[in-house]
Amino acid sequence: MSANRLIYLPLGGAGEIGMNCYVYGYGPEGHERLIVVDLGVTFPDMEGSPGVDLIMADISWLEARADRIEAIFITHAHEDHIGALGLLWPRLKKQVYARRFTATIGRLKLDESGLPLDAITTVAPRPAIVEAGPFRVQFVPVSHSIPESSALVIDTPAGRIFHSADFKIDHNPVVGEPWDDDAIRAIVAERPIKALMCDSTNVFSTHAGRSESTLGPALKELIQKSGGMVVATTFGSNVARLKTLAEAARAADRSICVLGRSMRRMLSASEETGVLTGFPRLVSPEEALEIPRRNLMLLVTGSQGERRAASAQLSRGKYLGLQMKEGDTFLFSSKTIPGNERPVLKIMNAFSEMGVDVVDDSGGLYHVSGHANRPDLEHVHRLLLPDMLIPMHGEHRHLREHVKIATESGIAAEIAVNGMMMDITGETPQVAEYIETGRQYLDGNVLIGAMDGVVRDRIRMALNGHVMVTVILDEGNAPLGEAWVELSGLPDIGRGERALAATLETDLSDFLETAGAKVLRDDDKLDEALRRIVRQVTMEEIGKKPEVTVVVSRLQAE
Amino acid sequence: MSANRLIYLPLGGAGEIGMNCYVYGYGPEGHERLIVVDLGVTFPDMEGSPGVDLIMADISWLEARADRIEAIFITHAHEDHIGALGLLWPRLKKQVYARRFTATIGRLKLDESGLPLDAITTVAPRPAIVEAGPFRVQFVPVSHSIPESSALVIDTPAGRIFHSADFKIDHNPVVGEPWDDDAIRAIVAERPIKALMCDSTNVFSTHAGRSESTLGPALKELIQKSGGMVVATTFGSNVARLKTLAEAARAADRSICVLGRSMRRMLSASEETGVLTGFPRLVSPEEALEIPRRNLMLLVTGSQGERRAASAQLSRGKYLGLQMKEGDTFLFSSKTIPGNERPVLKIMNAFSEMGVDVVDDSGGLYHVSGHANRPDLEHVHRLLLPDMLIPMHGEHRHLREHVKIATESGIAAEIAVNGMMMDITGETPQVAEYIETGRQYLDGNVLIGAMDGVVRDRIRMALNGHVMVTVILDEGNAPLGEAWVELSGLPDIGRGERALAATLETDLSDFLETAGAKVLRDDDKLDEALRRIVRQVTMEEIGKKPEVTVVVSRLQAE
Repeated sequence: MSANRLIYLPLGGAGEIGMNCYVYGYGPEGHERLIVVDLGVTFPDMEGSPGVDLIMADISWLEARADRIEAIFITHAHEDHIGALGLLWPRLKKQVYARRFTATIGRLKLDESGLPLDAITTVAPRPAIVEAGPFRVQFVPVSHSIPESSALVIDTPAGRIFHSADFKIDHNPVVGEPWDDDAIRAIVAERPIKALMCDSTNVFSTHAGRSESTLGPALKELIQKSGGMVVATTFGSNVARLKTLAEAARAADRSICVLGRSMRRMLSASEETGVLTGFPRLVSPEEALEIPRRNLMLLVTGSQGERRAASAQLSRGKYLGLQMKEGDTFLFSSKTIPGNERPVLKIMNAFSEMGVDVVDDSGGLYHVSGHANRPDLEHVHRLLLPDMLIPMHGEHRHLREHVKIATESGIAAEIAVNGMMMDITGETPQVAEYIETGRQYLDGNVLIGAMDGVVRDRIRMALNGHVMVTVILDEGNAPLGEAWVELSGLPDIGRGERALAATLETDLSDFLETAGAKVLRDDDKLDEALRRIVRQVTMEEIGKKPEVTVVVSRLQAE
Repeated sequence: MSANRLIYLPLGGAGEIGMNCYVYGYGPEGHERLIVVDLGVTFPDMEGSPGVDLIMADISWLEARADRIEAIFITHAHEDHIGALGLLWPRLKKQVYARRFTATIGRLKLDESGLPLDAITTVAPRPAIVEAGPFRVQFVPVSHSIPESSALVIDTPAGRIFHSADFKIDHNPVVGEPWDDDAIRAIVAERPIKALMCDSTNVFSTHAGRSESTLGPALKELIQKSGGMVVATTFGSNVARLKTLAEAARAADRSICVLGRSMRRMLSASEETGVLTGFPRLVSPEEALEIPRRNLMLLVTGSQGERRAASAQLSRGKYLGLQMKEGDTFLFSSKTIPGNERPVLKIMNAFSEMGVDVVDDSGGLYHVSGHANRPDLEHVHRLLLPDMLIPMHGEHRHLREHVKIATESGIAAEIAVNGMMMDITGETPQVAEYIETGRQYLDGNVLIGAMDGVVRDRIRMALNGHVMVTVILDEGNAPLGEAWVELSGLPDIGRGERALAATLETDLSDFLETAGAKVLRDDDKLDEALRRIVRQVTMEEIGKKPEVTVVVSRLQAE
């Protein structure tokens, strides 16, 4: 039997921001016992994944080794860490461990998918320990932009791992536990850190991070001086922000109404689990209609411009009877995630047309990030003094930069992107193997592979349009009637004011008239010939090469 | 005959950034003589205009009044001001006026479209005057991010208009004429300004704009200290930037190679027209291959992540034999236009994977904007002292903010978005009429209306997939064989591991078997019934409602 080894394998979240899923293993090569950290999602976009509902890591590698999985740990309740739980748990069926708030959100997801709620065990923070085969795992409270975010201390026979999860250094986070240097020092004093797997999101932000608590005064001033209704959007899970906004509203004698299911859900989970107390009583949308605008504040979902969220709905008109008006203020207490600029700007401009004052984060007053900036990362490197560092939670450029700064301070650091299994048994991380991995899509209610070609075909139809050709051949392979053409997503009229479909039908029928029996009797040859004509004629007529579907119906002798 | 009036009508560029097209008119109502300022384009995106090649203003209103158009003026050679010239000129066929550099670029566009080059008349700057019916127009040199950008002084019997076009206040713009307060004062002294139509792009930037000339030292330092090859991208039309980059390269003993047609075209037009002199000799890509990397700098197109431009090509591998390597530096000397973040980040990450150091504008060192910031706009308001101001070149939120700051300093300001004809004869701008306007798309080589439904159908196919149903009925309206189904952009397998197409074919064929003659003989009823079944079954099987095309072929008695 070969020697035991300690491995680390990111399946999602390393080389991208989103769909986090990390695996640790310990044991003889190929027989390691495994734990999984996080099962997150990424959100689709029109550019690369039109019509897709959710994106998550392809976990086939894990599925094939489900018998070796000891447990699943969820670090916090952001969608990019917990969002795939209901979809992927049935493929692994292993016990899930999370702290109370995270577990509450997780059980809502299991419930929606009709899965057993006791699949999740609620765990207290360190010093409580979860034993999972060769692993002993502790949840370490860290500050972030959601209650109860936790780093993991993972003890293995080969050494102690610190899996940072998402964190920032905030000594006064408004809700939840502050960042605590001493608690981190105690972890290191207890047992030195062999490997730090570390959040890299803000490695390019060169100033020290700001505390959530610094936002209060500016938000109070803004809300105080606003004449009409104030509407504020932020991530629904940013409970601390919601509290700051609500307190600022109350200081300005405003009642608070929350619009958007995900935000309401986060608030009630926070109150239920005791992480949030003293939040002002909310008014319902019906009650809100009776309150003077200058005594009202709405907290709404949709800070990223999501089409169906409350912000977008309000930008299009009435939502639950409520409507923005001239003199109102709309506040984005949030950052626009790269790629979401267009829909966010669309909402801003729609409000501008209504005469609403739109305020965003451009002045740096109304939002702080939930991730550690570069000086904060360097501080954490110094606190933890790990033998090695592998950056995670970042695009490739973030990982690369993080490796650079770690290397500069003498830590053995390596980039490991999704699918790179690292052997971390020794003093430096070594590539052990490249695992075939990728993304899968929830499309409607079906999981499909990102490379299956389904979405590629949709993108092609969106770019090129679609031509459908129907041809009927009789028992003797002779064309019966003319070819029939239907266009989708293509202009009706081509050059010289000719109808494109008619031109195609003429040219296809002419071809059928003169085609030899060898072509007419061979489905593939006929399909190819018709397809070629369609693409050529369409190119001449309108300058595009469309996608083509050919249906040849052959009548059978009865 | 009614009194003469002076009107202003934006057809593009007011309520958006892009496809600028403005109309001025003077004369009796409905008989005004007209001039057109700029014929620009906007670039499409996957979100709203997949597969489209270019977007431009719908000029049907102008076309219907072509006999009243005196002339077309192009303020500068940016695509959002000149890009539609070759496409829209044939619909107006009026003389075009522009300064030398702009005219040179314009003639290249006319040439590509096979149009007469003498449609453009080259005009000298003020004091030269173009007489166009009741209008007397002068080109006023302003600083911007392209050579020879010009504001227009438009004299009419009802007063003097200052059409700012795109500008910034730059007293040392590296290439071209510096901003000149005295020249502007002289214009006002000559005749007071009745109306200022003013660039609004940077109204939210609260600091004073920076001069192009401030970039030299930082660029020199960056290029000097880089070990490998340096590749820099910026807009090809930013000739001043190209000059600064080239000079920094030469100071670091680097030869310069330009990749990308549009950049080469801008450089030769600049040299040809004398706006650029002393640009270092370029080496060809073949020559570049022989030069040590640390003595080479490439200037490349594609700062916005355009798929086919040189930057994107280099991020995917070799381009013209040249290839990025570890230790090279790639510089975005540019700002990412909102909406282009994803493709730009994709390129950055691809370079990161190659070990290339990517440098962008986030530190504020390597790029300055070409538009006037808020303090600069306020300065120009004070210089010009217009009776009224109508903001242009901005999204609605920019226009609104610009009106706010103008109003605060006592100028009568109003928002006029595309299609709002303003009567500016009196002391304040008044809405005269709402013109039906919009966008048209160049799609392949056909111009289609944005609301024609063609692109909407493409977007729907991208979101929902496409099902094609073929049914053959005999002379007696009885189904001949089974229904046939083809899927595009949909998963093959639905719930319960059933093949979706087979399930659909069975259900459709079952329906046809039992359908009454009334349905079978009626194309519309049959189409609707089949469509309904497809959407319902697909929803059940895969949770999506696809687009459906039904082809019913009826065999004729011969």
